[in-house]
Amino acid sequence: MRLLFLGDIVGRPGRAVVADRLPALVERHRLDFVVINGENAAGGFGITEEILQDVLDAGADVVTTGNHAFDQREALVFAERQPRFLRPVNFPSGTPGRGANLFVARNGARVLVVNVMGRVFMDALDDPFAALEREISACPLGEQADAIVVDFHAEATSEKQAAAHYLDGRVTLVVGTHTHVPTADHRILPGGTAYQSDAGMCGDYDSVLGMDKEEPVRRFLTKIPSARFSPASGSGTLCGLAVEIDESSGLALAVAPVSIGGALEQRLPPFWG
Amino acid sequence: MRLLFLGDIVGRPGRAVVADRLPALVERHRLDFVVINGENAAGGFGITEEILQDVLDAGADVVTTGNHAFDQREALVFAERQPRFLRPVNFPSGTPGRGANLFVARNGARVLVVNVMGRVFMDALDDPFAALEREISACPLGEQADAIVVDFHAEATSEKQAAAHYLDGRVTLVVGTHTHVPTADHRILPGGTAYQSDAGMCGDYDSVLGMDKEEPVRRFLTKIPSARFSPASGSGTLCGLAVEIDESSGLALAVAPVSIGGALEQRLPPFWG
Amino acid sequence: MRLLFLGDIVGRPGRAVVADRLPALVERHRLDFVVINGENAAGGFGITEEILQDVLDAGADVVTTGNHAFDQREALVFAERQPRFLRPVNFPSGTPGRGANLFVARNGARVLVVNVMGRVFMDALDDPFAALEREISACPLGEQADAIVVDFHAEATSEKQAAAHYLDGRVTLVVGTHTHVPTADHRILPGGTAYQSDAGMCGDYDSVLGMDKEEPVRRFLTKIPSARFSPASGSGTLCGLAVEIDESSGLALAVAPVSIGGALEQRLPPFWG
Amino acid sequence: MRLLFLGDIVGRPGRAVVADRLPALVERHRLDFVVINGENAAGGFGITEEILQDVLDAGADVVTTGNHAFDQREALVFAERQPRFLRPVNFPSGTPGRGANLFVARNGARVLVVNVMGRVFMDALDDPFAALEREISACPLGEQADAIVVDFHAEATSEKQAAAHYLDGRVTLVVGTHTHVPTADHRILPGGTAYQSDAGMCGDYDSVLGMDKEEPVRRFLTKIPSARFSPASGSGTLCGLAVEIDESSGLALAVAPVSIGGALEQRLPPFWG
Ligand SMILES: [Fe+2]
Ligand SMILES: [Fe+2]
Ligand SMILES: [Fe+2]
Ligand SMILES: [Fe+2]
Ligand SMILES: [Fe+2]
Ligand SMILES: [Fe+2]
Ligand SMILES: [Fe+2]
Ligand SMILES: [Fe+2]
Repeated sequence: MRLLFLGDIVGRPGRAVVADRLPALVERHRLDFVVINGENAAGGFGITEEILQDVLDAGADVVTTGNHAFDQREALVFAERQPRFLRPVNFPSGTPGRGANLFVARNGARVLVVNVMGRVFMDALDDPFAALEREISACPLGEQADAIVVDFHAEATSEKQAAAHYLDGRVTLVVGTHTHVPTADHRILPGGTAYQSDAGMCGDYDSVLGMDKEEPVRRFLTKIPSARFSPASGSGTLCGLAVEIDESSGLALAVAPVSIGGALEQRLPPFWG
Repeated sequence: MRLLFLGDIVGRPGRAVVADRLPALVERHRLDFVVINGENAAGGFGITEEILQDVLDAGADVVTTGNHAFDQREALVFAERQPRFLRPVNFPSGTPGRGANLFVARNGARVLVVNVMGRVFMDALDDPFAALEREISACPLGEQADAIVVDFHAEATSEKQAAAHYLDGRVTLVVGTHTHVPTADHRILPGGTAYQSDAGMCGDYDSVLGMDKEEPVRRFLTKIPSARFSPASGSGTLCGLAVEIDESSGLALAVAPVSIGGALEQRLPPFWG
Repeated sequence: MRLLFLGDIVGRPGRAVVADRLPALVERHRLDFVVINGENAAGGFGITEEILQDVLDAGADVVTTGNHAFDQREALVFAERQPRFLRPVNFPSGTPGRGANLFVARNGARVLVVNVMGRVFMDALDDPFAALEREISACPLGEQADAIVVDFHAEATSEKQAAAHYLDGRVTLVVGTHTHVPTADHRILPGGTAYQSDAGMCGDYDSVLGMDKEEPVRRFLTKIPSARFSPASGSGTLCGLAVEIDESSGLALAVAPVSIGGALEQRLPPFWG
Repeated sequence: MRLLFLGDIVGRPGRAVVADRLPALVERHRLDFVVINGENAAGGFGITEEILQDVLDAGADVVTTGNHAFDQREALVFAERQPRFLRPVNFPSGTPGRGANLFVARNGARVLVVNVMGRVFMDALDDPFAALEREISACPLGEQADAIVVDFHAEATSEKQAAAHYLDGRVTLVVGTHTHVPTADHRILPGGTAYQSDAGMCGDYDSVLGMDKEEPVRRFLTKIPSARFSPASGSGTLCGLAVEIDESSGLALAVAPVSIGGALEQRLPPFWG
């Protein structure tokens, strides 16, 4: 079974590269399931329902988010009626929408996707480890779920690695998002879980986190805001990772980076043939 | 001109892979200059003078550090007499040692190395951007320096990217350290400066930041320390990046990841032939 | 009904002033209930069972704590068998001890004490607001509880004030601890809850947070540890606040600062007669 | 010599209580010098030139600020032409305005006022201790200055206390601002410097930091912004402290809290007669 996970879509360059490249990838490589983090799709801040629909139409099965989940206030409404939209599961009880859901992949497999937010250098939320334990206990791999994908939206590599070791052997993939930079530490952990500290972003890398670089650089220099942040406008990179999943165990057989278009080194999984 | 930069050495697995692999790399690929961040070489915390000497003997020209620079208190003494040891240049005035120095590479080139620490999610130090401006103005590329290497020791990808854009065209390489995870965003910026958000670590990746994973995972779960952190003991990965430098301009011709041994994907620069 | 709440005991000066002054206060002013935060009683870090017993013997009915609750590892054991010892209620599930308990005051009133930790600029714990809601719903004022005291151990004044307004009219007292400095904002909120942002500490104020000032000042100057922190050794101030409680409603009739001995202005509640 | 220092003016209630009460205090008690922190005077965010003029007209000699100094962008312009407006001295070089200045009090004394910002739990700026050392060395007490007032705008009590001990005997007063809550730890340090961890705010205390409490409480509960913050609209408290200064040494003879109007305990310095 073939999974593709793509990192945070940032603004128009991110949306464009997803719309341009994803449909052909899904078809040519017969991808069974696609998860994309979309928390910065709308001008860098949140996501609208229209953009969500575009991303789903391009081939995503699920759109995850993070600290920017509700930057577009309409998400407080559509979160309830869009089962393919996830926000971090450890938001306070009462938050609109859901943080985990079970989906059926194109090959018929039942895939649990959990979106959770870390706490180191992040806003204070409830314990992500306890939340993961709850979700995975309620729908274990090999029982109710044929595959489990965890989007661990967080800043600190320590927290992401600890979560991955904690879940190793119990989920298919733990992948980080939020730093907007892909890491080169993709690997299969001893227990069979695929891991990468960050999926990177789908956006223009000639930027600061996908945003036009002028204002961020100026703020570091002057410590005083001069203008709003807006997305960079160069060409985007489709960035994430692919996992080959053992259909009998739900664990990972192989994991490899995906990087198409834009400023980064171009990479396709060798196992996509 | 051929530069190799390696990320934070963590404990014995990191020291071992450097000692085992670096001498042959230097010789076989005729490396002109090698910089290694050594801030976690001694049991994960700081570096002793003996270890520093071992790293230099293995082929490093310069050892940089970061927030752990003085974890081993003897560093407060040897920092003064070891010109190849750098600690962040933006430590308070009066801190032992130096944060920047000019070295002569094996090809005769004068290489300025600046070690600086970021401030986002880090301890409070003086402005790294102003410090970089000072150091680079005092020894500009193409005048007193034939190449300039900046080790930007920091957590946040935003700050590292902003520093790189700020320096683009004025230095050879801006590379991050500190997260202990290599990023896959190596590239040459529009102005000719090579950039990678983090060089990763030289250490055992089956770990949390190179440290045995049991105690870090437990702390995330319980929020109460149970034991000291100690380095993991599996085999290490030599991890960093290589830069091919234009000797006339001092800017980057090519940049590529280096990852040898241990748990990560193995990579050697194509331009090393 | 007469309540006394005292802030964080720091080291020997804090323990001494409690032992010297509290018994006479309890007797002379016929105090019905005494709560003391003891998280720094043992050399500035945590509390031992022996010190806990001394504080109870001096007249405390309950000893609360905070981020330092388990600095003395024996607390992981005695927390279970000491019902008068509280640690923050929003520690992870499975943490030894309890974070809330119901006690009987000398006048027969049932007093619920809840110890909770804030999250702004503090270690990441589960939502303190949700935890308070749970505890207070399970034992409401005017039903199972005749008085409710909340020790909100936190750094930020914003979070403490928000908690107080959230609970106003539903508890007797919300008082902050942790900054080791008494605030002068004691007052009764519109709904009848007494509030003070911080109770201050019981310790030597000629110090930095009760600790000998030399090393803390040096660390701010050099950013490098030189020595361990140890408590200051001058004379301590008994510091906190008194609340006069309406026995019919459990709400506050009056609130006033208490400050006895040491370097601070001396204050006794006018309503203690 | 008689000094009055008032904490952060927050919105209309803060401006009103300053305008209503300060002129009579200056006259009746023959105040020689008045410093007010005004960083939240304009709707809670920054200060306009018109409001600055009103505060000066009401009797302030100097208006200090902090992290909100430039929230009103016109401050980037008027900071240059208003010598009585200070912003933190440790902002990056090139920031408009000044962070320290020498003034002449009504009794003819030369008063150096230094506004500096702490770094613990605050935005990253250059070292406040080094900045203070520079300013005070350039204009020492007993030489070019007859009194020195330091507004240390910071969150953490540890940093404020450390700064006070560092300066003890070399300045007249170290007073904190920023938490918007007055502390009850006013005292004269062993070397003769008056100290209080925070002056509190001039504003409506039935609030969260002077802002209407509804939205701040909701954000703590939901973690999602629902509305903008706006100042509370109840009656304000004039809040700060008074220092009696020895004109021969420039050190403090006495220090006492000032709290007039609004929700807090009413206090006037006993030495004001
Ligand atoms: Fe993002
Ligand atoms: Fe994010
Ligand atoms: Fe490191
Ligand atoms: Fe580091
Ligand atoms: Fe404490
Ligand atoms: Fe504490
Ligand atoms: Fe303020
Ligand atoms: Fe402030």
